[in-house]
Amino acid sequence: MSGSSVDYTLYLVTDPYNPSAHDRYFHKVADALRGGVTLLQLREKKASSKQLFELAGQLKDMAASYQVPLIINDRVDIALAVDADGVHVGQDDLPAGVVRGLIGPDKILGVSASTVEEAVQAEKDGADYLGVGAVFPTRSKADATSVSIETLGAIRQTVRIPIVAIGGIDEANVETLYPAGIDGIAVISAILSQKDVLGAAKALREKAETFRKKQR
Amino acid sequence: MSGSSVDYTLYLVTDPYNPSAHDRYFHKVADALRGGVTLLQLREKKASSKQLFELAGQLKDMAASYQVPLIINDRVDIALAVDADGVHVGQDDLPAGVVRGLIGPDKILGVSASTVEEAVQAEKDGADYLGVGAVFPTRSKADATSVSIETLGAIRQTVRIPIVAIGGIDEANVETLYPAGIDGIAVISAILSQKDVLGAAKALREKAETFRKKQR
Repeated sequence: MSGSSVDYTLYLVTDPYNPSAHDRYFHKVADALRGGVTLLQLREKKASSKQLFELAGQLKDMAASYQVPLIINDRVDIALAVDADGVHVGQDDLPAGVVRGLIGPDKILGVSASTVEEAVQAEKDGADYLGVGAVFPTRSKADATSVSIETLGAIRQTVRIPIVAIGGIDEANVETLYPAGIDGIAVISAILSQKDVLGAAKALREKAETFRKKQR
Repeated sequence: MSGSSVDYTLYLVTDPYNPSAHDRYFHKVADALRGGVTLLQLREKKASSKQLFELAGQLKDMAASYQVPLIINDRVDIALAVDADGVHVGQDDLPAGVVRGLIGPDKILGVSASTVEEAVQAEKDGADYLGVGAVFPTRSKADATSVSIETLGAIRQTVRIPIVAIGGIDEANVETLYPAGIDGIAVISAILSQKDVLGAAKALREKAETFRKKQR
């Protein structure tokens, strides 16, 4: 799976895993996939490596059954161990160029960027796509740097690789992002914190498709 | 560097890194290496991947200048990224067999074991050595399973790979471990928490050499 054939329309990032709600965690992800998520990222900062390995293996099988690629946040070793489709790194993770060397040319490499400089560097280092945010205030990542729509647009003008907007995106505010020229949106709460996960995923997928078509 | 040519006599595991005491951290490790540490493990549970990568790179250069191999605890990706000499995994980390597949046949693979069963499995999975402990109560790893001298001996009778005892070892209690047939000792506090790090490393190295010779 190479970066260029990936559908970035609706990118789901997992919320923290809680072993005592194991079934619920997987049911929610399954509902989100059924609802139309096009890309899945395992982002898990507190689990042991063993837990991460097991989670990643299960999510990989589940995502594969929906033909959705699985990306692992930060942990290149876990991605290699389960043969995930790619890795996403932030500015506090392994340098993107080092990651590209470890995963080879074919796996998807995503990089978080909140400035034009970071975006340019990431593209140079071999990123397949950028995660740009936080475009709105978010509780899922309290320390995230905020990125204005102007910066989002400036990044779009500067790099050629796909851009996924992230951070506090929901059904109500998603439309405002498309004029900047984004390829997709990444969400956690807007899907996984909703009572009707399947319905939330469907609605966001539809909006994301519609707004992206309008922008073209 | 293959597991069989490694000197396990005195294995130093790093204590937690504190960015505000950066120089002190490296000075202490350098003193320990000068004092006779034969193997070095970076064990760092809280740093970001970027910090880990930088620490590992610096420790690798430092250890190499003393011809001492650097082993990375848990994080196979960091070990691969800096081309460290090996990886050490515990029972909550990636399975040893998976790690062997990721690092290839030549890098050193160490596995923590506190029972005969875990030791046998680790050897089967391709471990080059075992870290067995905690042989004494330790504050460095409060949740460590305690291992009796009898279990240490039983593990020695069962597996063929080298055994490094770990957990609460110091100058006063180290002698009692050798009759069980260990190949070396791993310590944190007994070197890094001492006022005279160089002197502590020298003294432990001498004791380790002496007791190991007596046992043969």
